[in-house]
Amino acid sequence: MAETPDHPAGSSSPSKYHNFDVDYVIHYKLPTSPSESAKAEAAFSQLIHVLAKAGFATEVRPGKQGSNSLLVFVKLASLPLLQSQVYRSRIQDWLYGVRTAAPNPTNLPLSRYFDSEPVTEAERLRLAYLLITKTKNENGAGVTPKIGTWKYVESIFPLHDRKFNRQWITEWSTKYVLDEEDLTKIRDKFGERVAFYFAFLQSYFKFLLFPAAFGSAAWLLLGGFSWFYAAVNCLWSVIFFEHWKMKEVDLAVQWGVRGVGKIQLPRPQFQFERESLDPVTGEIVKVYSPYKRLARQALQVPFAIACVVVLGNLIVSCFAIEIFINEVYIGLFKQYLTFLPTILLTIFMPTFTTLLTKLAEKLTDLENYETVDAHQDSFVQKIFVLNFITSYLGIFLTAFVYVPFGKILVPYLDVFSMTAQKFTTEGKPLPTQVWQINPDRLKKQVIYFTVTAQIVNFATEVIVPYAKRKAFKTVEKVQALSEKNEEGLLKDSPDEAAFLKRVRNEAELADYDVTIDYREMVIQFGYLSLFSVVWPLTACSFLINNWVEARSDAMKIAVNSKRPIPWRADSIGPWLNSLGFLSWLGSLTSAALVFLFNTNKSGPDGSPWEISAWALLLSILFSEHLYLVVQFVVRGVLAKLDSPGLQKERAERFAMRKLLLEQMIEHDVLSAEAGKGAPGLLGSGEIITREALEEEARSLATVGPEKLFWQRQRGPDEAVHIGRALIAEIATANQTKARR
Amino acid sequence: MAETPDHPAGSSSPSKYHNFDVDYVIHYKLPTSPSESAKAEAAFSQLIHVLAKAGFATEVRPGKQGSNSLLVFVKLASLPLLQSQVYRSRIQDWLYGVRTAAPNPTNLPLSRYFDSEPVTEAERLRLAYLLITKTKNENGAGVTPKIGTWKYVESIFPLHDRKFNRQWITEWSTKYVLDEEDLTKIRDKFGERVAFYFAFLQSYFKFLLFPAAFGSAAWLLLGGFSWFYAAVNCLWSVIFFEHWKMKEVDLAVQWGVRGVGKIQLPRPQFQFERESLDPVTGEIVKVYSPYKRLARQALQVPFAIACVVVLGNLIVSCFAIEIFINEVYIGLFKQYLTFLPTILLTIFMPTFTTLLTKLAEKLTDLENYETVDAHQDSFVQKIFVLNFITSYLGIFLTAFVYVPFGKILVPYLDVFSMTAQKFTTEGKPLPTQVWQINPDRLKKQVIYFTVTAQIVNFATEVIVPYAKRKAFKTVEKVQALSEKNEEGLLKDSPDEAAFLKRVRNEAELADYDVTIDYREMVIQFGYLSLFSVVWPLTACSFLINNWVEARSDAMKIAVNSKRPIPWRADSIGPWLNSLGFLSWLGSLTSAALVFLFNTNKSGPDGSPWEISAWALLLSILFSEHLYLVVQFVVRGVLAKLDSPGLQKERAERFAMRKLLLEQMIEHDVLSAEAGKGAPGLLGSGEIITREALEEEARSLATVGPEKLFWQRQRGPDEAVHIGRALIAEIATANQTKARR
Repeated sequence: MAETPDHPAGSSSPSKYHNFDVDYVIHYKLPTSPSESAKAEAAFSQLIHVLAKAGFATEVRPGKQGSNSLLVFVKLASLPLLQSQVYRSRIQDWLYGVRTAAPNPTNLPLSRYFDSEPVTEAERLRLAYLLITKTKNENGAGVTPKIGTWKYVESIFPLHDRKFNRQWITEWSTKYVLDEEDLTKIRDKFGERVAFYFAFLQSYFKFLLFPAAFGSAAWLLLGGFSWFYAAVNCLWSVIFFEHWKMKEVDLAVQWGVRGVGKIQLPRPQFQFERESLDPVTGEIVKVYSPYKRLARQALQVPFAIACVVVLGNLIVSCFAIEIFINEVYIGLFKQYLTFLPTILLTIFMPTFTTLLTKLAEKLTDLENYETVDAHQDSFVQKIFVLNFITSYLGIFLTAFVYVPFGKILVPYLDVFSMTAQKFTTEGKPLPTQVWQINPDRLKKQVIYFTVTAQIVNFATEVIVPYAKRKAFKTVEKVQALSEKNEEGLLKDSPDEAAFLKRVRNEAELADYDVTIDYREMVIQFGYLSLFSVVWPLTACSFLINNWVEARSDAMKIAVNSKRPIPWRADSIGPWLNSLGFLSWLGSLTSAALVFLFNTNKSGPDGSPWEISAWALLLSILFSEHLYLVVQFVVRGVLAKLDSPGLQKERAERFAMRKLLLEQMIEHDVLSAEAGKGAPGLLGSGEIITREALEEEARSLATVGPEKLFWQRQRGPDEAVHIGRALIAEIATANQTKARR
Repeated sequence: MAETPDHPAGSSSPSKYHNFDVDYVIHYKLPTSPSESAKAEAAFSQLIHVLAKAGFATEVRPGKQGSNSLLVFVKLASLPLLQSQVYRSRIQDWLYGVRTAAPNPTNLPLSRYFDSEPVTEAERLRLAYLLITKTKNENGAGVTPKIGTWKYVESIFPLHDRKFNRQWITEWSTKYVLDEEDLTKIRDKFGERVAFYFAFLQSYFKFLLFPAAFGSAAWLLLGGFSWFYAAVNCLWSVIFFEHWKMKEVDLAVQWGVRGVGKIQLPRPQFQFERESLDPVTGEIVKVYSPYKRLARQALQVPFAIACVVVLGNLIVSCFAIEIFINEVYIGLFKQYLTFLPTILLTIFMPTFTTLLTKLAEKLTDLENYETVDAHQDSFVQKIFVLNFITSYLGIFLTAFVYVPFGKILVPYLDVFSMTAQKFTTEGKPLPTQVWQINPDRLKKQVIYFTVTAQIVNFATEVIVPYAKRKAFKTVEKVQALSEKNEEGLLKDSPDEAAFLKRVRNEAELADYDVTIDYREMVIQFGYLSLFSVVWPLTACSFLINNWVEARSDAMKIAVNSKRPIPWRADSIGPWLNSLGFLSWLGSLTSAALVFLFNTNKSGPDGSPWEISAWALLLSILFSEHLYLVVQFVVRGVLAKLDSPGLQKERAERFAMRKLLLEQMIEHDVLSAEAGKGAPGLLGSGEIITREALEEEARSLATVGPEKLFWQRQRGPDEAVHIGRALIAEIATANQTKARR
């Protein structure tokens, strides 16, 4: 169904690219302790039965050797079941306004309807997953991985389409620009949620061309801290942001998912306090006190403070040590001590970040949301705060604390010299140099974050997992060789051996989480918007990085991750707000940076000495409001542009209206016939006969004053006649008056 | 139909409250010059014929004596025509998402459908008006008042329902608070556009209770310029604004008009450059170059500058003269000269405002919008700028120029003394006093605008037009008496005399323009948000004013205006943005006012001498961003509340889904039957017979590898069996490993 077999049946290697029509694989991990084994076995047979009841065919195979796991292969058993699911889902879409027209408006037989609007692979997989996870009340199997009865269900995942993946990676690595068609392919395979990420990435990549070119020119001609560059950069970020908002809607319409955000998936982890009857619909709804949730949401404030305190302290400490060592200290081991802050950061930053991310997860779980989206939004908010601090706080400190207040603060670094003195055996003071603000520091830092960090990030994201897997595999192979003799029932049928090997590998891969990729791009956009005025080449670096990023993300999905479940989405979700926030904040920081560092005003050593606070504040205030005005204007102009998506929507609505109006013509014909019953009101140019007049006189005797009023002039001709007489009368009266 | 006759047919005074089923009256003005008379006559007979063709019954009567006009009474001739119009309109609503469900979903016969969802008076009148004004291509009559062929059509208006009006005014003048039912009545009579105004007024009135109470307390305990009052006031304005945004949606849903903004009325004055084919729908569309329009819209900038220059100069001049006379000059005629600035303002301000409003109208016409709403939006934008300047500029000048910079600026007022000196015959200098900043000035000005001006406004809005009409009538009566003898064809039938007299009076009334009432309320809200920190009693004054305002506006509609055409609306339109803008600006001005005038910091004479610019800017910056954060939070909290409108929508959607699912059960039954065709995949607990096995072996020989894969375990029981075996195997392997 989903796959067309590309080898004739019975050929020698049918399973090289072949998925045997499997919709999902359920990775069932068995516990090692014998006490739990019985429970796991009972849960397993329950699993197979609920799946069968929900309409799935199942096949069981052993998992990877030594992994103590089973693989349950699952597919929708019958075509009519699939069709019924699809039809229901399309009806729901239509009710929520996601589709303009009802499915099958002309009431074709179902089979012919599905020929005209076929089921895509993503749709099939999405509905199959929903059917596996939906509760039994909703006719699903109610299997929720890792929760409750199903705690041994390690994961439920669809299988990669190897042939497609191979083609995909080959194609993308040989072309410069991705087009709509590439995105559509992604959408059909991995669903709109993943496709939206690539669409965003692509749109951002294209938009980067301008600041890359302009930034290079500015770097050559204007240098850093140019107000002109800052203004253009802000304008660009406004246009990019507003354009993406439009593009997002446009894509959603084109992909037929506009408004799917309204169809919420219930979150299986949600714990309700009580059940109550919905006063409106009479359905039973699960309720969790919103006040309790609000109270728990309030924990976000201490969480944010904790992030600032923990990460802030780390950054400030390393910062202080670094300044002390690099710019004050000139004693022993300086060349080694220079690396101390970097080492500290490299050790502690990921540790703290991981801890805080765990904490954020816990907090979000505690908030106990009813829907997956609400949960996700709340989590994204928290990690945005976290990443904002880890990514930007260092630069903020340099720009807005170190440079303006350095002269005041650095003497306090003597704490270090005093401490250091205690460790020197000899009684003489440590050698230190007279300190001066290092104006290049900020630039170096920005370059570090926008170039070095991006490369490091690429390495940790793609190369490390790949290398890890390779290493693991070698170890496993050695192990497997030594254990080979023990194989018993675990032997695979030769037809399936290659396929099963592939599936076992996929089961070990990580889940693909698009959030991480979004986070990376949004944080990157932040550097551009907030700090690129320091080093205008920023966008060039990002342009190159993002070309690689798109390909490496594709690789990550195709090779390093399980195939994602093809969820739908109608936007990039909560990241949109983060983008808007960063774009706005950019107007503040750019103005402040230009004001503080523009060399025209700065002292002889390049540091800005003559800062007047009110002028700084005024420039920030001015810049921010200019930004808001520009945003308003850009939004207004962009709203007037047409787009393929909107055209599509218009066309659909028009087709729908035409269909309905055609149906209405029958109504009108009927109405017109019914209308003939009403006597003497419409008929123009009716002949007045004696009979008619008599009839009228008779009827007048019995009717009320309304009828009388309306029958003084019978038909338009009489009305015109009387009207003309009146006009003549008035004209005569006027002339008489004029003559007098 | 629309009216139920409340007097039995043939009673003595059937027409006292009776409108003879008239839908619309067309007031047809005849030209006085004989040369044009023929044209007018031709157009008149064309008028009657196009109306008849569009399905209207017509009756002609003479207009008011000496007014050279005819009255054409119009009603929809047949019930089926009305029903067909209503049905079409409801279909359109549904297509645009205004209605959740299609009209008549269960396919009742039309007559029974209209029993279940009857046609309201407002609906009937709206559709009748549309049918009169729609082009002939759309089966309308194409009559557009005052334009082209129809330049003699002075107006098209529905008739007041006297009985309802009388009851309405009586009821409202005796109750304190209007409820939902009152609004629903307004809605059914005058349409949603007018109802929204009263809903807004009512909501605003209720919200005013809090600042009125709190303001009184603050006035007693804290005095003016309290930062605490300012903070609470800002918070209040945020909550009010966000609440109204929710309420607006809620009402729109309750009234079934949510999203009607998407159904745009074409503007008859629109002039197209060329016709072209819509690439999407294939319809002919009229096109006007958007670039041309953009160029013309750019004229708004010089317009705004012109407003600022003209009105600003006037205000500044009067302001300067006033300060000079009141606070510097102590010479002759001081008691009379004091009134000079007021007189100047009273003469020139309305003149300039009228001129600039005319200019705004011209500009908006020039922008040549395609739809009525776009035109209206653009016009409202312009008059908001105009009114912003006339209303607030004076106070801004006092607060932010006169007080902080007075000491620097006032010496320049010597220009006046020098000029004045020339006019004194004696050579000695004019007597002047030493000038000091008058700290009460700002408060006096705010009180003037929030109390005195509101009363004056009430008088000009209600009392003046009423008095005017009374005076006119007396004059007319005298004239009529002297001309009585000339009456000829103009004699009315006694049955209709009273009715016609009433209609002739209504024809002379002004059109009701809800924009003017909105403007008044929005500007009032501005005083509260921007300046009430100066005088915390502001809200008390407004509370009283608005109680009267609601009643006087009702009076204005019922007595002083033609009955408005019952247009629909789903919001208060462009005024919402104005409200948001004023609320936001309030956070800036309040912070600045508190900072500048708070007596704790001010000098001994009550004027703030020790102003540090950076602290002022910082407090403004802080206040603004606090405002934005609070707005964000309030919006988030309010979005979580339920409301009757949203409940209604949910209920409708639920009913719809239920209906569809019931219809789908048939589908499912069919599907299940079809599903039985698929062999051996779903059947759980199938008995394995020899025949079945043989059959299977035969089929296996011919099928591809997929089938083979899925038929290794036949049915769930076998899968469970194999799975258990695997589990046992693994457990054994584990135990063996553990033992070794």
